[in-house]
Amino acid sequence: MKVTVWNEYRHELENTEVSAIYPDGIHETIAGFLQEAGYETQTATLDEPEHGLTDAVLNETDVLVWWGHKAHDEVQDEVAEKVKQRVLDGMGLIVLHSAHFSKVFKKLMGTGCDLKWREADDRERLWVVDPTHPITEGIGEYIELEKEEMYGEHFDIPAPDELVFVSWFEGGEVFRSGATFKRGRGKIFYFRPGHETYPTYHHKQIQQVISNGVKWAANADTPTPVYGNAKPLEEISKK
Amino acid sequence: MKVTVWNEYRHELENTEVSAIYPDGIHETIAGFLQEAGYETQTATLDEPEHGLTDAVLNETDVLVWWGHKAHDEVQDEVAEKVKQRVLDGMGLIVLHSAHFSKVFKKLMGTGCDLKWREADDRERLWVVDPTHPITEGIGEYIELEKEEMYGEHFDIPAPDELVFVSWFEGGEVFRSGATFKRGRGKIFYFRPGHETYPTYHHKQIQQVISNGVKWAANADTPTPVYGNAKPLEEISKK
Amino acid sequence: MKVTVWNEYRHELENTEVSAIYPDGIHETIAGFLQEAGYETQTATLDEPEHGLTDAVLNETDVLVWWGHKAHDEVQDEVAEKVKQRVLDGMGLIVLHSAHFSKVFKKLMGTGCDLKWREADDRERLWVVDPTHPITEGIGEYIELEKEEMYGEHFDIPAPDELVFVSWFEGGEVFRSGATFKRGRGKIFYFRPGHETYPTYHHKQIQQVISNGVKWAANADTPTPVYGNAKPLEEISKK
Amino acid sequence: MKVTVWNEYRHELENTEVSAIYPDGIHETIAGFLQEAGYETQTATLDEPEHGLTDAVLNETDVLVWWGHKAHDEVQDEVAEKVKQRVLDGMGLIVLHSAHFSKVFKKLMGTGCDLKWREADDRERLWVVDPTHPITEGIGEYIELEKEEMYGEHFDIPAPDELVFVSWFEGGEVFRSGATFKRGRGKIFYFRPGHETYPTYHHKQIQQVISNGVKWAANADTPTPVYGNAKPLEEISKK
Repeated sequence: MKVTVWNEYRHELENTEVSAIYPDGIHETIAGFLQEAGYETQTATLDEPEHGLTDAVLNETDVLVWWGHKAHDEVQDEVAEKVKQRVLDGMGLIVLHSAHFSKVFKKLMGTGCDLKWREADDRERLWVVDPTHPITEGIGEYIELEKEEMYGEHFDIPAPDELVFVSWFEGGEVFRSGATFKRGRGKIFYFRPGHETYPTYHHKQIQQVISNGVKWAANADTPTPVYGNAKPLEEISKK
Repeated sequence: MKVTVWNEYRHELENTEVSAIYPDGIHETIAGFLQEAGYETQTATLDEPEHGLTDAVLNETDVLVWWGHKAHDEVQDEVAEKVKQRVLDGMGLIVLHSAHFSKVFKKLMGTGCDLKWREADDRERLWVVDPTHPITEGIGEYIELEKEEMYGEHFDIPAPDELVFVSWFEGGEVFRSGATFKRGRGKIFYFRPGHETYPTYHHKQIQQVISNGVKWAANADTPTPVYGNAKPLEEISKK
Repeated sequence: MKVTVWNEYRHELENTEVSAIYPDGIHETIAGFLQEAGYETQTATLDEPEHGLTDAVLNETDVLVWWGHKAHDEVQDEVAEKVKQRVLDGMGLIVLHSAHFSKVFKKLMGTGCDLKWREADDRERLWVVDPTHPITEGIGEYIELEKEEMYGEHFDIPAPDELVFVSWFEGGEVFRSGATFKRGRGKIFYFRPGHETYPTYHHKQIQQVISNGVKWAANADTPTPVYGNAKPLEEISKK
Repeated sequence: MKVTVWNEYRHELENTEVSAIYPDGIHETIAGFLQEAGYETQTATLDEPEHGLTDAVLNETDVLVWWGHKAHDEVQDEVAEKVKQRVLDGMGLIVLHSAHFSKVFKKLMGTGCDLKWREADDRERLWVVDPTHPITEGIGEYIELEKEEMYGEHFDIPAPDELVFVSWFEGGEVFRSGATFKRGRGKIFYFRPGHETYPTYHHKQIQQVISNGVKWAANADTPTPVYGNAKPLEEISKK
């Protein structure tokens, strides 16, 4: 199984507070722990040609992890559309934190994907609300992050197919922090934490959840639907 | 439309702190504001014969509101079963606060319905997570209760058909506070707030939500399924 | 409540088989029975300026009914985008038959919305699978259409929030024929029947379902979420 | 992983038509192909002491497969309750065909679980409606069974968490044939086919689906919720 970790990779190059936490970029940190978890990984970033997401790369990718924040608009429409199509064709997608506003996620959701936010070192607790879900494997009842950016409801997404985590924030908000969606033949997991100025992706439980998410999102050999003009049963059966 | 408000009605008779808030019982307070909202209402309590829920009462009830806490076990199994059947046959059910542990709700859910709790004057905020839902009509983005009992996840219910409210509590917990379920031909709304030592059912927005819930839960003239041995299409069409 | 019925209105002008069934266009037939059901209605068609969907029209529309088939591509992107935004802002949307492939529906779903089809006078039975749903009010266990175009699974939509009807077709297919979706503050009902060469919209039960759908899709006065930078609880409470 | 296959095992002993198809009982056929698929299996039947479902057996079972039909009432209430509790505690459950009316399934669903039926050699087609689901791995767009008992809607279950298959029947009916439910920490898969007078469990694709279902239903090491009186965040954090 092949995982591609995509990162905007701008904050790390422009902000020393961020590069101190992620010296090689958020993508390398994520690719690193996924590799340790046994996945074959590669990375791609915004400023590579085609944002690093050539047809060849997309076609061999089983699960794509996406982090973006300040440069969503710079993602070319054709690339965003291509990624969306690959998801519909069966590629798994892990959407992290501020990627709620990425072109790819918004296209797949059909909604505005807006939310409340605050950068004020809120304490966050991610409570498990679905203790059957494989994405919670090896996690306790909740994950506690001492400081994170707050994201608050209303989160303008379709009702998720499965709600896995709900976050509590010190300042008075809640958020549907872990949510799954199926679109076409693809599986999508949105996972909230990961503001660039906090060491969230170094947190062992957060790493575990992302790793579980990758495993969950990978497509099994499920059927490929056939569309268009169809013969009735008798004609098919005669063959 | 006829609404029956059922209450255990024990705390109010035994605890002056509670009777100071609900001198005629929680049921009368709820029946009162529902009547003002235009519903024909009646009440029933645990210590009446058949708990006040005779066949005649149940059959004429369009929506039943249920509050219970310390005497769930004293509800006769036959009555609980009868109420469940009426829900499956189309009667709406509003399940309030500690009625999460009532026989009726547990039978309808099929799960343990357990949760975390704390009586410590936590501040609660009920956030709307489904701003299309008629149950949120006339409510703003959230309802704030200065003091309430805390209920925390994990709440051991099936994934709700619709998640309408998620609560935030001062002490660090979240809770799926407003949730709808369809069972048989019946519609069920679980709504969390209402610990007996707080004046929650005097709160205008809480009253509005319960009133909206009653309206939503009332069955329209929807189809009555036919079960059992069925003839094939040709035989039906020949008639 | 104001309902706008939008129709492509091309088949009726080009094909005498169709105009024999809908002499004034499908839109007038639908607007007619909705008016009889008590709704204030207006119509709009593709070849009007802005396709008849000016800001003024959209802003006063509570529920929009959409029928399109052969000219989806001629709907201007800006108009499709505007309609989508109005749905997210709270306008109800009834998507009929071949409008599964309309720009508006595809944008709101985020998927390909493709399906199987066959024009072979298949008999169709629409079975009610959710007998609590107000959209089934006044309908029996199923609706039978002697002849219709077949639509078959796989239907490439997100899992509906509610599945109301499932169709059976003579030739061996099934289809999720009545499905609801919530997006933003808007409610969407997809309803399958209505190929232009059959008198489907003259069928009393089909009319009833569409009328029920309009009633269901109209937004109550639900909350308008606030997005963006948010103050914490203490600062709000101090005010 | 350990799978226990439970069977009523009465038809096979009383009816030569059935024993001709399943000479060692339906349970041995199912256990056989699951073993070939790599699972450690054991069987249990109604007429064994405690129906073969002692605490020891249940506690070591990761996934329980259940087939029953004519003797649902003979299953002791305590055993049914014990099985239900084990599902809530995390044991997977595969509910086959007429087990829709088993005590265990009805307790877990909270509804009547009734349906339409006909024994008339209807042809059945099980269409995949969720081509992302691992339960459909290795299956094409549909499974065709030349002859089966018909089960028709309305099927009186809660809306499934996931709808995987919808059946078409020759005589005019549809049925939600493959449906998943989560209850407590347990995962449940209802799968329709398997009337005792047809060789359905010898069908390769049916075997594949059941095998996939077992794999899907097995619990990962997900969190065990803690219920009851809970301390607030500050007190927990101080430790």
